[in-house]
Parts: sequence; structure tokens; C-alpha cells
Amino acid sequence: MVNVYFTFEPREDLRKPLITEFPQVDFVFDSKLDTEKLRAAEILVTYGEDLKAEHLQYADKLQWIFIASAGIEKMPAEAIASRDIFVSNVRGIHKKPMTESILAHILAYKRALPFVYEQQKKHEWNKKARLSELNGSTALIIGPGAIGSEIGRILQAFDVYTIGCNRSGEQASFMNETHKLDVLKDQLPKADIVISMLPSTAETKHLLTREHFEIMKDSALFMNFGRGDLVKTDTLVEVLTEKLIAHAVLDVYEIEPLPAESPLWEMENVTLSPHFSSHSSRYVERSLDIFKPSLHKWLAGDRDLENKMVILRGY
Amino acid sequence: MVNVYFTFEPREDLRKPLITEFPQVDFVFDSKLDTEKLRAAEILVTYGEDLKAEHLQYADKLQWIFIASAGIEKMPAEAIASRDIFVSNVRGIHKKPMTESILAHILAYKRALPFVYEQQKKHEWNKKARLSELNGSTALIIGPGAIGSEIGRILQAFDVYTIGCNRSGEQASFMNETHKLDVLKDQLPKADIVISMLPSTAETKHLLTREHFEIMKDSALFMNFGRGDLVKTDTLVEVLTEKLIAHAVLDVYEIEPLPAESPLWEMENVTLSPHFSSHSSRYVERSLDIFKPSLHKWLAGDRDLENKMVILRGY
Repeated sequence: MVNVYFTFEPREDLRKPLITEFPQVDFVFDSKLDTEKLRAAEILVTYGEDLKAEHLQYADKLQWIFIASAGIEKMPAEAIASRDIFVSNVRGIHKKPMTESILAHILAYKRALPFVYEQQKKHEWNKKARLSELNGSTALIIGPGAIGSEIGRILQAFDVYTIGCNRSGEQASFMNETHKLDVLKDQLPKADIVISMLPSTAETKHLLTREHFEIMKDSALFMNFGRGDLVKTDTLVEVLTEKLIAHAVLDVYEIEPLPAESPLWEMENVTLSPHFSSHSSRYVERSLDIFKPSLHKWLAGDRDLENKMVILRGY
Repeated sequence: MVNVYFTFEPREDLRKPLITEFPQVDFVFDSKLDTEKLRAAEILVTYGEDLKAEHLQYADKLQWIFIASAGIEKMPAEAIASRDIFVSNVRGIHKKPMTESILAHILAYKRALPFVYEQQKKHEWNKKARLSELNGSTALIIGPGAIGSEIGRILQAFDVYTIGCNRSGEQASFMNETHKLDVLKDQLPKADIVISMLPSTAETKHLLTREHFEIMKDSALFMNFGRGDLVKTDTLVEVLTEKLIAHAVLDVYEIEPLPAESPLWEMENVTLSPHFSSHSSRYVERSLDIFKPSLHKWLAGDRDLENKMVILRGY
């Protein structure tokens, strides 16, 4: 029997149909990574944060790692590559929940929801908030991949003009214009909303500097939902203190969790989300929906899995 | 010269182009309704809350009232009708800002934004919130007029199935289905989100009763952005205390402002917005954009104005 080892525990109502669908598979579910259980596993299903290089010496039978997340920075890439283990992930799973989180933040900011909540707490009927509108504005999406394009699609429905910036400059979906990242500085002054969805790579690390914020509109809303090392925390604190832009919404940080002593916590023109904007109560259900067809393929000897990754390349 | 009397004061940058565009018009701007100024006015531009029946005895020259709002409940309808004064309003002006507010509330609720704001205040990195998703859900829009259809358009972009209920049952725009209000109870059990956009009329007053909430899903989100007398406040308090539904977002109330002693203020499963979800920093600009073409028509002797209302009918 093929042994599939989950280092997390799906809910009973999701686990049962899985077991029923694959009678030829021996499923092992655990709440953490256990070395003994790893020894027996042909397939490992993990969120990608528990597997270390030293674990692999025990994983003699391991042939495929299914990562139920999108980020793989914490995976021991070289150890995995040297063993020729297949790696696939749930690319695309974040598209809808993240887009909904990002739109929630944009609209809450424009329509003064934090003010509404505060007044309710004070039991005060108070209309004195400045409510602005999203429609008619321009958004710049840095890194318009699967998620960025979905954001573009929804923004366009709200009558927002969308500009994408990616490595190639090739037209991305649901962008009114797409440009090369090289000319990012030409695009920044046009944007009312700047959203980064960039992954963490050598090229994107500290890509944004003070200079970039200087050329943004004073009224700009900056959102980082990609990776935290895109911009130094000190730079963010500086440009927000000086009000070079109006507001920032951050879901990712240079150091996570964001240290308790970070000045960001106190700043009025910043909204801090604890790197969970892709979370969803339907997440495991969705991961399994992606895993199951791949597992069928695997059992049939087909190694052309969905979302196969080149682990050393990082995506 | 035609005398146009504004009982509010547009910003200088909006007032100037208006005066320039209409050299044949004598504009009078005031921060309140003044009886003397009303005497001279052929056209009155008002938000619709200041004009009383007794004012009309002074308004000998008044021929047209332009209401820079959508609600006209506070207008002296019979006195206006008996004088055959033209009335027009800014129908449609609320469409975009209101839709954005409603989507802000829906998404903030689904993506746990109130939790995010609370954790930030406590300087706590805490991911323990239940984030759910909007896509794939079903929304019932009661009263899918101009605003309701715009909400439907955006909800459909988020992959939400939309059901409309209106008087005629005639297909409304951006509704996957439209039904008669008579069969509202057949539709309520299907909806994850119930949004009322109904105006206040004899037919809509206290239209929703406890029974309606009993047949909604336990997980339903109820939103009243129409008029507050759709449902008795006591009924709302009751069904929310008993958790017959999951959450309510209210922008309108039976009594406004909502009295300080209302139990609604304290309830955890209610979000209270102070009847301002249509507000916008671009509101006056937009009202003037609707007023100007009508004023050109008026000066040319054309009385077929945009958004002409039958004041006794109420819309």
C-alpha cells in the first residue's frame, strides 16, 4: 500500500471521503512531523514549514512532497533537489481569499470602516468621517501573477484602471497596461493604490527604497501582500512617519511575527495584518481538491502532476 | 436673470465653474434655508431636509426643486404637488459609493477585518480568526433598483449567485434570478447574504418580521441599507440576541439617530453604520454634474428634466 503522511490533521468530514476515495492508500495523519512516520512515507503532505534538511536522511521512501501552501522559503530546497523528490503545491489556492482580503482592506479604508467600528464602541452616532471612493482610481500591481491578475479583474469591475509591472513586461491578464519592472519608477506617480504581490527572490529583496515612496502620490495607499523583504521596515516607518504616502496595509514583514517593539504597531496610517490574508475556513478542503487528482495520477504511474515545482528555482 | 438658490455651499472650486458656465443665472449660496432668499428663487437646490410646507407660501416664484439627495421623505409632498412645482433629484448618485460601502462591510466581515484592527491595537500578532470567503455564496437583494443592480454586478464579479426580489418580479439587471416580493419567503432560506435596498413606502413598512429571520440560514448576514422601518428594531434585537442569523450590518434605523440606549450598540453580532454609507467626498461634484445638464435644459425652455419625480408617489 502506498503510504501518504499528512503532518496536519484535516477535519473528520474531509478525512473520511479521502480515505473512501483511495482504498489502496494507507493514510497517516499527525499534528506535527514525526521522524518515525516519515520513514514509512512515500508521499508527504505538509504546510511546508516543518520539514528540515536533517529529516530527509530518514525519509528513504519519500518520492513526492505535496505542499499545502504557496510559499516554500522554509523548505530545504537543496536537500530535496539532491534526492530528486517531486514537489508540487497548491498554486492558485490563495487567489480568491487573498483577493477578497485585499479588496476588503481597500474598501474598508475608502469607506471609513475603522471609524464606523470605533464610533459603535463609543455608542456614538457620528457621521464626521471622510468617505472616499475606489471607482475612477488607478492601481499599480507589482507582480501580476495568478493572484495579482485576479485582483486586477475585481478592480476593473470597480472601474479602476490597472497597471501591472512584471519582469518581462509581457501583458498580464486584467491589466490595462503592463510594463517592465525596470520602469517601475515611471508608473508609481500615476497610482492611487500600489499593491505588491512579489515573491521573495534575490531580485525583489529590498527592491523598494525611500525614493520609490517619494515619487508616489501623497494620497497613495501602499499594500504589501507579497513578501516582507521587498522593503526595509525602517524605510516603511520613515516614509509613513513623514507621510510621504497616506496609508499602508501590510500583511508581510521583514521579520515575522512582527516584533512587539516595532514602531509600526502604533502608527495611525498603517494597518497590520498578521500574514494571514490567504487564510480561509475552506483552505484544507481546497488543498485536498487539488491533491486528490494528483494522487490519482500518481497511483496510475503518471508523474506529470499539477503545480509541479522546480524547488531550486523557488517556484 | 434666473435665480437659483442653493441651501448649501459648494466648495469654491466647484462653485466657480458653475457661475462661469451659466452667466445668465443669478446664483445664491447659503448654508441654510432663508425665507427671504426663497422669495426670489425660481429654482431651489436643496438636500431635501430643510424645506417645510410653511416655507412654500413665501416661494411665489419657485418652479423647480432640485434635490441633491435620493430620499425625499422629509419633503412637504402635498404642498409641492398642489403648486405643480417640478421636482427632480440625483437618482443614481449613490450607486457607486453605496455599493462600495456594502462590499466593504461584506468583505470586512468575511475576512475578519474588525479582528485585525483589534489585534493591532493590542500590539498582538494573532492569526486565530476565522476567515471565510465571499465567492461561491448566494446573495438575495430585496429591491434591486439602480443601487441593488450595481451591487449585483459587483457580487457576480466575486462569483456570488444573485437573487432579486421586487414588486413586479420582472428580471432586474445583474440578478441570476428575479422573483416577486410575494414569494420572498421561498427565497430567504437560500441566501448567505440578505441585502435590503427597499425605500420606505406603505408596502415596505415592517415588511420583515421574526418569521423571515427564522427561515434565513443560521449563518446568514443581514444588511439593511434601504430604510429603517423595514423591520422593527425590537424584532432585530430579538433575532440577533437569539442568534437566528449570524450577523447584521445596519445603515438605517427606525429612529435616527439610533437612540443611545438602544441595545443594538452593545451587540457583538451587529455592525452599526450611521446612515452615511452613500456619503462621498465627491458627492457635491457629482450632484452638480447631474444638475448642470438639467439647468441648461431649463434655460432652453425644456421641462423634460432628468430624474423627474412624482412627489406624491414618493419616487
